[in-house]
Amino acid sequence: MIFEVVKCVKKVAIIGAGCSKFGERNDVTVAELAFEAFKPAVEDAGITPKDIEFVAVGTAGAGAWYEENLPAVIVSEYCGLSGAGLMRCEAACASGSAAFASAYWAVASGQVDVALAIGVEKMRQIDTLTMVEFIGRAGCYLWEFHNFGLTFPGYYAMHATAHMAKYGTTEEDLALVAVKNHKYASMNPIAHLRNRVTVEEALSSPVIAWPLKLYDCCPITDGAAAVILASEEAVKKFKVEDPIWVAGLGSACGTANLSKRKDYVGLESTVIAAQQAYKMASITPNIVDVACVHDCFTIAEIMAYEDLGFCKKGEGPKLIREGQTEVGGKIPVNVDGGLKAKGHPIGATGIAMLYELTKQLRGEAVERSRQVPLKNYIALAHNVGGTGHYCYVTILKR
Amino acid sequence: MIFEVVKCVKKVAIIGAGCSKFGERNDVTVAELAFEAFKPAVEDAGITPKDIEFVAVGTAGAGAWYEENLPAVIVSEYCGLSGAGLMRCEAACASGSAAFASAYWAVASGQVDVALAIGVEKMRQIDTLTMVEFIGRAGCYLWEFHNFGLTFPGYYAMHATAHMAKYGTTEEDLALVAVKNHKYASMNPIAHLRNRVTVEEALSSPVIAWPLKLYDCCPITDGAAAVILASEEAVKKFKVEDPIWVAGLGSACGTANLSKRKDYVGLESTVIAAQQAYKMASITPNIVDVACVHDCFTIAEIMAYEDLGFCKKGEGPKLIREGQTEVGGKIPVNVDGGLKAKGHPIGATGIAMLYELTKQLRGEAVERSRQVPLKNYIALAHNVGGTGHYCYVTILKR
Repeated sequence: MIFEVVKCVKKVAIIGAGCSKFGERNDVTVAELAFEAFKPAVEDAGITPKDIEFVAVGTAGAGAWYEENLPAVIVSEYCGLSGAGLMRCEAACASGSAAFASAYWAVASGQVDVALAIGVEKMRQIDTLTMVEFIGRAGCYLWEFHNFGLTFPGYYAMHATAHMAKYGTTEEDLALVAVKNHKYASMNPIAHLRNRVTVEEALSSPVIAWPLKLYDCCPITDGAAAVILASEEAVKKFKVEDPIWVAGLGSACGTANLSKRKDYVGLESTVIAAQQAYKMASITPNIVDVACVHDCFTIAEIMAYEDLGFCKKGEGPKLIREGQTEVGGKIPVNVDGGLKAKGHPIGATGIAMLYELTKQLRGEAVERSRQVPLKNYIALAHNVGGTGHYCYVTILKR
Repeated sequence: MIFEVVKCVKKVAIIGAGCSKFGERNDVTVAELAFEAFKPAVEDAGITPKDIEFVAVGTAGAGAWYEENLPAVIVSEYCGLSGAGLMRCEAACASGSAAFASAYWAVASGQVDVALAIGVEKMRQIDTLTMVEFIGRAGCYLWEFHNFGLTFPGYYAMHATAHMAKYGTTEEDLALVAVKNHKYASMNPIAHLRNRVTVEEALSSPVIAWPLKLYDCCPITDGAAAVILASEEAVKKFKVEDPIWVAGLGSACGTANLSKRKDYVGLESTVIAAQQAYKMASITPNIVDVACVHDCFTIAEIMAYEDLGFCKKGEGPKLIREGQTEVGGKIPVNVDGGLKAKGHPIGATGIAMLYELTKQLRGEAVERSRQVPLKNYIALAHNVGGTGHYCYVTILKR
C-alpha cells in the first residue's frame, strides 16, 4: 500500500451547507426530504441550481428502506439539477462521506468548479425490527448475518466487551457518552432525540445487547444534509465571504469478515483514514478544535477518541469521565448530539457532520451554548460504514 | 450551468484491464465474479493488490437482484484490498462509468496514485419478468412505473416510434444493428450471445414492445469488468509500457420524468456529456477511431450515433445501412458485440466498454477480425443510465 498522500492540486472549499429536521419524516418523500437540505445549502452559498455542475447523492437504503430503487435522478430532478453530472455513492453508514469524497475529487481534479454533495435517508417507513435486520446485512451478509444472525447492536457489544476486558472500560463510561450527546441534542433544534438523560436512566434502560442498553444505541432516523463545494476560482467568482476549506481527506476499508480483524478494541480503518487525513492537512490531532465522530453506539465514540489520536489507546474512557469532550474541554466531540441523539439517517450522516462543522468553524452554531471556542479553526469529521468496513475522515479549516 | 470544462491538472492512464465471461453466471458469488475481472486487470497492470489505494465498485442491483445489500466491502475483501479507500457508485445502467469517474477523479486530484474501478452485476438469480420490473424502477418509479407500468422495452419503443415518425427510420434499420452486433459477439469469446442473426430472423422474432422485437433488446446478463487507473508518476514507477490515457470525461443527467423531456428522438444527457468530453479532450467526433455506445436496445445505438456527433441528427439509420459502423467503416461501433449481444450486466457495462477500448487502442483485440484500424489512436465510451437519466462519455487516447 502506498500511503504517500499528496495534497490535491486544486484547493476546494465548502461554500454552503444545509440540513433538514431529523426524526420520523413520513410527511415527505425522499426527494422532498433532500430538498429541505438542498434549499438552505444553495441559499447559504449564494448560488443558483444552474451553477452546480456535478451532484453526488449519498444514500444506502434505496429500494429496500424506501421505494426508490435508483434514487439519485429523483433527487436531482426535484432540486432542479437536470443537466449536471450525477451519481449515487454508497458506503453503508458512511455513504454521505463517500458522496462528499466523490464531489470533492470532481472539484479538486479540475473537472468541475461547483459540486453538490447531498445525503438523504428514509428509514422509518418500515418497522424497526426489519430495519435492524436490513442494517445487519451491511457488513458480511452471507457469513456473519446469514449464518450467525449478527446485527449491529451485537457487533458493537463485541467491541464494548473487548474494550472493557482490555482497558477496564465500564458501563458507566458508556452511559456518560449518552448523557453528553443527549445534552447537546437537547440544544439542537434539528436533532431527533431532544430529551436529556441521566447516567442512572441510561444504565437502567432496557438491555439491547449487553453491555449496550437502549441509551447506548442511536435511533433509526430520517433526514438529509447537503454541502456545496467550490474551487478557488468559484469562491472568488461568487464572492464567498467565509469559505471553509477542505484541508484533508482519508478513506480506508476494513475486512468484511470480522474474524479477520486483528482485534475488536478499535477500528483499523479509522486509524488508516485518520493518518491519511492528518498527513494531507499537515496537522496533528491535538490542534483540532471540534470533531464529529461516528457514535452509532456509545462504545464507538470512545473507540473513535483513541483511533483518531485524541488520546492514547485505552484512555478514551478517561476523556469522557473528565468532560474533555464537552464544549470548553480539550476536544469537544459531537456537540450537535451525534448519531446517538441528533440521529443517524445513514446516507445523510457524514454530510450532516460537515454541516455542523461548517457552522462551528464560522462561529454560527445555532445555539450559542453549543458553539465551541475556536483556536486553530480546524475541525474533523469521522464517518464509519458497518463496523469499520468503510471509514472516511475529513478535516476542514477556516 | 457552467460548462467550461478545464483539463484535469494531473494526467491519468488506464494501466490494466480485465473482464469476466459474460452470461448466466450462477456458478459464482458476486465477489467471485468480480475477482474474475480483477485478477487479469492487476496482472495486466503489473502491480499487486497492495498498490491499490482507492477502489470504486460499480453495481446497481445490490440486495434486490443479488443477496448482498451493501456489496463493495465484500468485493474488496475477496480481492485482497482491505485498507484501501472504498465506495460503491450507482447511476443505474451507467453505474460502471460512475465508478470509473470517481476513481479517475481520485487519481486526477492527486489524492491517490493508483485506483481500481470495478463493475459487477448478477442479474440472473431471479426470474426475467421480475428483473424487467426491477429495471423498470430505475427511472421514475412513483410516477411512470407505479402509475403507468412502464418498463424499459416500452420506454425505448417510444424512442423508436418517435425516431421513425420524424426521420423515416425503419424496423429493418433497427434489425441491422442487431445483425452487426451479433456478428461481432460471435467473434468475442467473453460475449453472452454468440449466435449470428439475419435481418429476416431479427424482423420475425417475437414483438416485445412494438417496434422492438426480441432481437432489438439486450439480454439480462451476469458479468464483471475492471480497470486500473494510475497517475503519471505511477505509470513511470511501474514502468508501464503502453498506458492508455484518459483524455476526456463528461457526465450529465436528464429529467427523471420523461414527460419533461424536449423530445424522444435522442438523449439530451448524451449530447451534454459528449460536448464536455470532446471539449476536455480537445477533439471533434470525426477523429474517433472506435466507439462503444449504449445499445441496450437497437434504437439506442442509432440515437447514440447522432447524439455523439458521428453523424447529423436523423442520419443514424444511414450510417448503419452503409455499414459505416463496422470494422473498416467510418466509425466502428460496438465491435465487441455491444450490450445487445456481448451482454449488459448493469454495473459492469461501462467498465467493460473501457476494457474493450483499451485492448483496441493497444491493437490487442482478442480476435484479429475485430481489431479496428487505428489512425488517431482515440476511442470513445458512451454509457447511459435509464433512458438518459444518467450519461457518461469517456475518451481514451493511446
